[in-house]
Amino acid sequence: MALKKKPVTGMKDILPREMELRQYVLSEIRRTYKEFGFTEIETPVVEHIENLLSKQGGDNEKLIFKVMKRGDKLESAYQNGSLDDLSDSGLRYDLTLPLSRFYSQNQAQLPNPFKALQIGPVFRADRPQKGRFREFVQCDIDIFGDGSNVSEIELILAISTLLNRIGFGEKYNFKIVINDREILRGMQAYAGFPEEDFEKVCISLDKADKIGNEGVKEELLSLGYKEEFIDRYQTLLESIGTEAKDIRSLGEKLKDVLPESVTKNLAEIVEAVAKVKSVKVNVEFDPTLVRGMGYYTGPIFEIRAEGFGGSVGGGGRYDKMVGKFTGQDTPAVGFSIGFERIITIMLDADEHVPGENRKTAFLLDKNLDAEKTAEALNEAMELRAKGETVLVSRMNKNKKFQKEQLTQEGYTEFREFYRDALN
Amino acid sequence: MALKKKPVTGMKDILPREMELRQYVLSEIRRTYKEFGFTEIETPVVEHIENLLSKQGGDNEKLIFKVMKRGDKLESAYQNGSLDDLSDSGLRYDLTLPLSRFYSQNQAQLPNPFKALQIGPVFRADRPQKGRFREFVQCDIDIFGDGSNVSEIELILAISTLLNRIGFGEKYNFKIVINDREILRGMQAYAGFPEEDFEKVCISLDKADKIGNEGVKEELLSLGYKEEFIDRYQTLLESIGTEAKDIRSLGEKLKDVLPESVTKNLAEIVEAVAKVKSVKVNVEFDPTLVRGMGYYTGPIFEIRAEGFGGSVGGGGRYDKMVGKFTGQDTPAVGFSIGFERIITIMLDADEHVPGENRKTAFLLDKNLDAEKTAEALNEAMELRAKGETVLVSRMNKNKKFQKEQLTQEGYTEFREFYRDALN
Repeated sequence: MALKKKPVTGMKDILPREMELRQYVLSEIRRTYKEFGFTEIETPVVEHIENLLSKQGGDNEKLIFKVMKRGDKLESAYQNGSLDDLSDSGLRYDLTLPLSRFYSQNQAQLPNPFKALQIGPVFRADRPQKGRFREFVQCDIDIFGDGSNVSEIELILAISTLLNRIGFGEKYNFKIVINDREILRGMQAYAGFPEEDFEKVCISLDKADKIGNEGVKEELLSLGYKEEFIDRYQTLLESIGTEAKDIRSLGEKLKDVLPESVTKNLAEIVEAVAKVKSVKVNVEFDPTLVRGMGYYTGPIFEIRAEGFGGSVGGGGRYDKMVGKFTGQDTPAVGFSIGFERIITIMLDADEHVPGENRKTAFLLDKNLDAEKTAEALNEAMELRAKGETVLVSRMNKNKKFQKEQLTQEGYTEFREFYRDALN
Repeated sequence: MALKKKPVTGMKDILPREMELRQYVLSEIRRTYKEFGFTEIETPVVEHIENLLSKQGGDNEKLIFKVMKRGDKLESAYQNGSLDDLSDSGLRYDLTLPLSRFYSQNQAQLPNPFKALQIGPVFRADRPQKGRFREFVQCDIDIFGDGSNVSEIELILAISTLLNRIGFGEKYNFKIVINDREILRGMQAYAGFPEEDFEKVCISLDKADKIGNEGVKEELLSLGYKEEFIDRYQTLLESIGTEAKDIRSLGEKLKDVLPESVTKNLAEIVEAVAKVKSVKVNVEFDPTLVRGMGYYTGPIFEIRAEGFGGSVGGGGRYDKMVGKFTGQDTPAVGFSIGFERIITIMLDADEHVPGENRKTAFLLDKNLDAEKTAEALNEAMELRAKGETVLVSRMNKNKKFQKEQLTQEGYTEFREFYRDALN
């Protein structure tokens, strides 16, 4: 029987044209983040199942690909008759959990603060749909060990520099929206929601962009919350603007339920970034921003691009995750760029990698003798030494079609080598 | 209970120092192979189990990490009571099989010949031991659709250019040894071994570097082969030299059992490469070279580096694998560089990435006001725009220790920013 030609369900082959764009964006990511002092690290694709199922991943924990035990371990687990026990590891669903494990394990060998860049595939057994795959690449930058807002400022400047370099500033006029989980907590307290319901209320609030304020109100009513609370919350939201001064005045309003240091901290981030004139960056306060992951503990952000629903990246502070490994909390804040989203947008816009080098094809007639072959090869090597691309290939029978194909691949110069004469 | 800090058994975290070296080598790989007209592609980490278990992988098929089915599929397989049926996919053990699947699936959209570069993690549940991990990176170049030896010549030139660029020419005086599976077949026929035992005899012959010629002889005797065959084989081996002319004279000897085109083809490769004066490359004929994988059908090669046992890369022609997918054989030849081996050698030699850019650390006093912070950030952005690395960080309480750590990370310039004066 013939083997299977298609990739496994929900995963994809990446062809040269897309790969070239991906590598271009990845090299801009590496170059830019390096300038900001981030150093690259890597963690295994396979992670302990206990870590993956430790409630750090929200809904992603339902989407884990489990890896089977092997040999005797598998046999005895199977004999014991428990399906859950057949696996002790799985494919990671994000990079944040493995990075926190990495930091906990290797802390003694890392500088403090530690600025990490991690790029790699993650896996989620999502229902396959257009543009969403079960294996995809994430690119995260994170800072461990610095609780001050210098971290958030640096993350915003780094990501903005990157987005400008790959054309998202000019073309899609990206902006970064920012909020703080503690402000959400303060606003809920101000409106009257019980403190212990914080996460639950957040889940409803987070749906505003899909079901509107009316929908959110209905849902919260159906969950049994007083209309008074909901109205007070929504009236508060409507009164808030998007600038640093609006954060400060919100702090005034919430001063009985929220330490002013929280709003001051967030306002400073917006102010500091606005003063950096050499980077085009647009940061707006958005008190409706919730972010799904329950592990965030402070400032949260999201990147929006004009003309595209949803975000092209996001992140936030998660000061409690390292403590789950070490018993001791460590400040941590990270930003994940929506790499696959960005690639999709660039491919749809038919963007090409800038500054492509010259590509020449040397086509060798099949009767070419050793001497002439060597001449062609030596010439090819000279051009390559200058950084040019030279394809050396046997000439096909259908030379015209071969050249057409190569032209599509970006080859602009052709040389044909025959036994009798160098053309 | 605390989460697990260590990576899963047999896999490893990669720290900044090693990662920097890896990225440097990877960028040299991409740059060099691109000059030779290879284009990069990617395949999923997860592959169909039928493909993985199709006897293309030799012993690696015993080392597969299987991925469990999910949901109803898993339940019903479990109820059916077959352990084997719990999985329909697994982690790839190499890049050659997925690449052949890729080519079979996407052929219509690819040029002919197609020169592919693929870089990515592969997984083998080997017994963990020093320097061998269960997840590791492979870097393969392959050429599909060209049956002529221009392919082999190009692969050898490309890999040699790369090895010279990363210092393996000068330091380890690498050489490429070459043979042909058909020559092995011819030599066995010449000695008297039955044709159907070819693979079996190869397995014994392949052990010569470990157990010596005497050991090989003993093993073949114990397998029931006549001493006469073995002696004739070993005497033949001893009579053969390492140069192109030796391949041609071997062809003479074997002319009754092997078409001369085979030895002519291999001799031409050695001759052509020797005539390319602009690349330092040392190719030797080695009639003892076998290579483990059963799928090779023609020329095979291996890279050896002085002072290191084993190979730092290898490959060969495998003209029958695409046919397993499409029903139609397609010429294919590939070369896999021993990426992890090369990194280990470079780390052991304490090699550093050449031409590192200047690294400056800006340390910000915690009382620094918004105005001064902005000044520091603007200055940092100016240096970054020139490609320099600037780390902006809150100043730690133990400033001296912070600077020592940063010095170890390669920071040579330090700037301290206080409320009252820019230092």
